[in-house]
Amino acid sequence: MSVTAPLGFRAAGVAAGIKSGGARDLALVVNDGPSRAAAGVFTANRVKAAPVLWSQQVLAGGRLRAVVLNSGGANACTGPEGFQDTHATAEKVAEAIEDSAGEVAVCSTGLIGERLPMDELLSGVDAAATQLSRDGGLAAADAIRTTDTVSKISFKRANGYMVGGMAKGAGMLAPALATMLCVITTDADVTSDELDVVLRKATAQTFDRLDTDGCMSTNDTVLLLASAASGVKPDLAEFEQKVTEVCADLARQLLVDAEGATKAIAIEVVGADSEQDAVKVGRSVARSNLLKCAIHGEDPNWGRVLAAVGTTDAVFEPDRLNVAINGIWICRGGAVGDDRSKVDMRPRDVTITIDLSAGPHTATVHTTDLTADYVHENSAYSS
Amino acid sequence: MSVTAPLGFRAAGVAAGIKSGGARDLALVVNDGPSRAAAGVFTANRVKAAPVLWSQQVLAGGRLRAVVLNSGGANACTGPEGFQDTHATAEKVAEAIEDSAGEVAVCSTGLIGERLPMDELLSGVDAAATQLSRDGGLAAADAIRTTDTVSKISFKRANGYMVGGMAKGAGMLAPALATMLCVITTDADVTSDELDVVLRKATAQTFDRLDTDGCMSTNDTVLLLASAASGVKPDLAEFEQKVTEVCADLARQLLVDAEGATKAIAIEVVGADSEQDAVKVGRSVARSNLLKCAIHGEDPNWGRVLAAVGTTDAVFEPDRLNVAINGIWICRGGAVGDDRSKVDMRPRDVTITIDLSAGPHTATVHTTDLTADYVHENSAYSS
Repeated sequence: MSVTAPLGFRAAGVAAGIKSGGARDLALVVNDGPSRAAAGVFTANRVKAAPVLWSQQVLAGGRLRAVVLNSGGANACTGPEGFQDTHATAEKVAEAIEDSAGEVAVCSTGLIGERLPMDELLSGVDAAATQLSRDGGLAAADAIRTTDTVSKISFKRANGYMVGGMAKGAGMLAPALATMLCVITTDADVTSDELDVVLRKATAQTFDRLDTDGCMSTNDTVLLLASAASGVKPDLAEFEQKVTEVCADLARQLLVDAEGATKAIAIEVVGADSEQDAVKVGRSVARSNLLKCAIHGEDPNWGRVLAAVGTTDAVFEPDRLNVAINGIWICRGGAVGDDRSKVDMRPRDVTITIDLSAGPHTATVHTTDLTADYVHENSAYSS
Repeated sequence: MSVTAPLGFRAAGVAAGIKSGGARDLALVVNDGPSRAAAGVFTANRVKAAPVLWSQQVLAGGRLRAVVLNSGGANACTGPEGFQDTHATAEKVAEAIEDSAGEVAVCSTGLIGERLPMDELLSGVDAAATQLSRDGGLAAADAIRTTDTVSKISFKRANGYMVGGMAKGAGMLAPALATMLCVITTDADVTSDELDVVLRKATAQTFDRLDTDGCMSTNDTVLLLASAASGVKPDLAEFEQKVTEVCADLARQLLVDAEGATKAIAIEVVGADSEQDAVKVGRSVARSNLLKCAIHGEDPNWGRVLAAVGTTDAVFEPDRLNVAINGIWICRGGAVGDDRSKVDMRPRDVTITIDLSAGPHTATVHTTDLTADYVHENSAYSS
């Protein structure tokens, strides 16, 4: 399961003592090949954590032997010393698995602005290296959790090969890309250039359309590693579909476990002049605190939808906007439509359909409701 | 007090029965001249309520005899019928004060997407017209409240003339401009063109820099009426200063009374390459739900400040960012600065200073914390 479902990968998850409570906090994923092709996408935030800066450099070579991930600290905004910590972590992994640090990606997640406890972390790398196994995927997925209440894993079987993945992320979930760490593996034989194209397309359709709280992280990283251990050179269209399925599955798990969320809201924009317009409108609606509160209160408050649509520069006429919530078109032509009492707001899944009446393009953005539990979870001292 | 502090103005506030609870819900402000010069600024939301569309037309003439305002319903997204309701309201005011509907502005606030109860509203206009008085400013300010817990009024005395004002607004408070209704009056002798210039400058520095929940309303309206009853032609620089002071005073009252807020947060951006950059960074930080939760929890979480700064395209280098909270520079050079335990987070007022180290420009954006009370207030069925 998880990142060890495909052939050629071993993983481990250990409690290194980075977190105070004794939970697992360090994961190691190793690609035993024969290929080491890899690609990555990273946060669009201009304030990037040290491990992001490091891993971007490493990925420039298109090859990864290993990924080391820690929870319990983001190693962001830690200056040159923080970058040295990341470098030292990669060197430690290289030493433990007898390989080059130049093919070791590093991912960190947790509080911004504090140095990592390096003694614990480096000992943890040694411990993880001794525990690497073909069964280690679940422990690795567990070790990268922060406020995640459950581990997020996925795998899909394709024509002679597999795609597996793990992810973490519960807060600071916003586009470009959604705040998170994610490692996806495959035993297909795919070049790093092909992996790059596939990963960018897959994440654009999945993680990039997730926005639970409008806050973009400093540490977002999604990595895709191919071992070629199956010996299969896949049809690229099928491979892209499988990777997209794994990303979508993990994105859904992130959404459902978002901090404090009680509703999973799909904002489906149709009738747009362009896909870009549809995404723009979806994002704007996904970021309306007032709407997210209303959905929490099971109030089909379409006025708040229109107020959010109206803040965008997408092509539309206000008097041609239609809005349905859970299939009931309660706003037609920019004004009152069907009886709002017909909308069943009780299910966890809520679909808001916005028809811009401006063209043939569509996009769906996923978000959650805004709850008192979100506030409580993020008001506690330094989470 | 309020809009009747300057000479030449009468006002009233009555309970017309638009709200169900019997509270005041209709206000009328009349300018008895001799001048009727006026200017207005309106929401930048492309989905505009009927009264906004009407009042924009009326203001094209640069003259206002009266303003009628109701709470209990926004008359937004109500189609052609909603616009007819606004028109009928202006006609009713014109009939009651024996003047032209073409110089009557209309403002509405409340739930989007429902028609107003016109029988009650039109009877209320008659009642308000009979109660117009030089003492009516407080009742008028009371009548426009929605979730506002207190009336918001202000007045400033200048060299031979006065500037007075009232405002409402507690939720959906976001720039361009902050969601709100506001009427400002003066007995100075100022042309409508001059009023327009002064009002745009004053609101750009005050209401436009208020962002409590990132949600832009369909009904924002700020009107400035001059009666010239003092006979004084003011120095325009002094007049602009007085109008700005009244706007700033009212903006502060809106901030302090924002839904659920326990903290008033000033985000002071310094060292910016341009004022536009400073505002952009201030707004981005003001919209970080995670930061707003942290401040609620009295956690000086500067990492969330940097994460929000990093999402903008303002000129800055991540490793030259400095951040102070309540005067303690807890982030220097994009990394850990002074001891965060020195920050006193207990006062209601919290100042976050962000030094972009990129130039001489500054701007301050005002916001509030995000609280469970905000969620509760906006989750209740259709507020």
